[in-house]
Amino acid sequence: MSTHQSTASSTLPALRFEHVAQQGEARAGVLHTRRGPIETPVFMPVGTAGTVKGIRFEQLERELDARIILGNTYHLWLRPGIETIRACGGLHRFIGWERAMLTDSGGFQVWSLGALRKISEEGTEFRSHVDGSLQFLSPEVSMEVQAALGSEIVMVFDECVPGEATYEEAQKSMQLTARWARRSRDTFDRLQAARADTGYVEARNLSGSQALFGIVQGASHLDLRRASLEQTVEIGFDGYAIGGLSVGEEKSVMFEVIDDVVPQMPPDQPRYLMGVGTPEDLVEAVARGIDMFDCVLPTRNGRTGQAFTSRGKLNIKNAQWTRDTRPLDDQCGCSVCQKHSRAYLRHLYLTGEMLASILITHHNLAFFLDTMRGVRQSIRSGEFPKFRREFTERLNTSGE
Amino acid sequence: MSTHQSTASSTLPALRFEHVAQQGEARAGVLHTRRGPIETPVFMPVGTAGTVKGIRFEQLERELDARIILGNTYHLWLRPGIETIRACGGLHRFIGWERAMLTDSGGFQVWSLGALRKISEEGTEFRSHVDGSLQFLSPEVSMEVQAALGSEIVMVFDECVPGEATYEEAQKSMQLTARWARRSRDTFDRLQAARADTGYVEARNLSGSQALFGIVQGASHLDLRRASLEQTVEIGFDGYAIGGLSVGEEKSVMFEVIDDVVPQMPPDQPRYLMGVGTPEDLVEAVARGIDMFDCVLPTRNGRTGQAFTSRGKLNIKNAQWTRDTRPLDDQCGCSVCQKHSRAYLRHLYLTGEMLASILITHHNLAFFLDTMRGVRQSIRSGEFPKFRREFTERLNTSGE
Repeated sequence: MSTHQSTASSTLPALRFEHVAQQGEARAGVLHTRRGPIETPVFMPVGTAGTVKGIRFEQLERELDARIILGNTYHLWLRPGIETIRACGGLHRFIGWERAMLTDSGGFQVWSLGALRKISEEGTEFRSHVDGSLQFLSPEVSMEVQAALGSEIVMVFDECVPGEATYEEAQKSMQLTARWARRSRDTFDRLQAARADTGYVEARNLSGSQALFGIVQGASHLDLRRASLEQTVEIGFDGYAIGGLSVGEEKSVMFEVIDDVVPQMPPDQPRYLMGVGTPEDLVEAVARGIDMFDCVLPTRNGRTGQAFTSRGKLNIKNAQWTRDTRPLDDQCGCSVCQKHSRAYLRHLYLTGEMLASILITHHNLAFFLDTMRGVRQSIRSGEFPKFRREFTERLNTSGE
Repeated sequence: MSTHQSTASSTLPALRFEHVAQQGEARAGVLHTRRGPIETPVFMPVGTAGTVKGIRFEQLERELDARIILGNTYHLWLRPGIETIRACGGLHRFIGWERAMLTDSGGFQVWSLGALRKISEEGTEFRSHVDGSLQFLSPEVSMEVQAALGSEIVMVFDECVPGEATYEEAQKSMQLTARWARRSRDTFDRLQAARADTGYVEARNLSGSQALFGIVQGASHLDLRRASLEQTVEIGFDGYAIGGLSVGEEKSVMFEVIDDVVPQMPPDQPRYLMGVGTPEDLVEAVARGIDMFDCVLPTRNGRTGQAFTSRGKLNIKNAQWTRDTRPLDDQCGCSVCQKHSRAYLRHLYLTGEMLASILITHHNLAFFLDTMRGVRQSIRSGEFPKFRREFTERLNTSGE
């Protein structure tokens, strides 16, 4: 991390996507980043405020072997702030995570504030959820914050629209996103040239700089989605994300958009479905050609006592587990399922012990990451259709 | 754990205390239990409701090498209840802790309920903090609960008195404790003979049964303390505890009692100072001949952002740590101090992330357990006075 990019290495890409196997639309590959290779399709645990809630990084790395996590620009910008993160050597050093990170742009978070924000051509004005202060986020600010964070993958600053938006609303928003994407790209390039990235790493066959992903918007309107994709690809990015799904629309709408958009996406670059979803969603989206996912479900549901298992969801509060000495999931090899019973986890949850959140979160992350491991192996071995069928059947047999 | 005690092994003791080294009153030894040896002096992390709050047992075992933890009879009896714990095979199996456990009697907890309880000759009537139901705890009930829990060391059911109790109050209470100790002993023996203990283990040179400790009461009145000790030793136990200290009295009073009582205690059996204390208290009590300790300080303070370090307490909330990249304690080898900065821990605490509690609790437990490791080594190598002096000096140099 000492010297910065040389003239020679600056022509190298920030990421390299290696296509390894394909079955139907499903594809297995390796995403080479400056902090090591990531086998795809991959699930990224969400590390909102500099921690994947309820788990220590040692376990995420050593036992669960997560290769990449997501950090939230909005949260980290407001607290502790980029001056502190810069002073501590960037986000990786600040939090103690040596592997790859993707940061979102803050666009979705400020959009989620609803009545508390005002969107203009310039950017989004909003009140901080921390101290109520007036703040302003724009493509330029988001790129500066993400350079200070030093993530491997930076996301453009976009606007999201509700699933039920009219055609006109969705079109207007999609066009704003396209203009913001251009401003993001320009600012990002300027910041890379100015060496503002705190995460620079000298890497083999890669530039060592940050990568930038574009985001396709357009709500449920397929022609807007196609136009958004075209405009985004025209600007040119290291990977492409589908945003604005899983925000309240019907699940069938989500898959309709994916079915239509993915085949149009550049085949040699990674495809990221933002904020999705359940284990079943992941497998179904992989079958349609998606490579990357992030979702709060395993961690958030871990804190509310809901476990994901190979036989579907399990609510640990249910009285039927009071004296049940079985693990959450007898198909799971994680350290929680090897050691602890449903009876014990239920007791911890009812007693309000934080260990309940810790253990169920751990299992949920293990289940999501194991599912993706199974997905990858089955694509490589040519058995993905069988994996998909059996996985779905088992999920619906009910473990309760 | 299959077969129960044979006629031959029933004459063996439940515990064996091996005296290894002595320096002044300080002594190093090994307490042999049915679940393995415990080097003394030893600190027992408190596992109130079947979990040492904020840490997984894997880490307590593998990294911190805690050999014995304390469980609370009162809490576990009320929730999940002994039917559930029996159905799940006893407390060790229920919570997934294979090493030794000591359970308190519930006496201190119901005493702490204050106005919510009524103490009579028979026992203590109180309202459950869980559901408000009327409950009754007595020597007989406490022994039955502790047999169901299956801990290695059972404590007699005692009454505690406030530090400021008059002589008459303290005397009356001490005499009640003596009568309860006799009833505890009788019930305990009957339960062991009836094989009610869920934790029976076939052990070399030991009976494999539970051990029972007596408790010395008498508040700050030295003659009452001596009388209590005599009555307790007359009944006969596997070890002796000093109770009713660290309940609001001056620190000098605590050490005055210890100075007076410990030299009168049976030299061949373990001595346990209940509910004490700060790292400094531990070292000072070891210097006076104590072998065992338990205290909630490392875990409770871990949740309120207060770290124990070799240079004294450190409040993680302080603004001065905002960009401080040093660990909590540069003398500490724990996994938290090896990886995380004060700046990061402060950020986690202010953000309300549970990882703050997890990491500071982990460090605090490491510090307490490491301190006791240092104490043991220095007694064995004949350098305890030096250790004690340097430890105390360093504590007062202030790390802030």
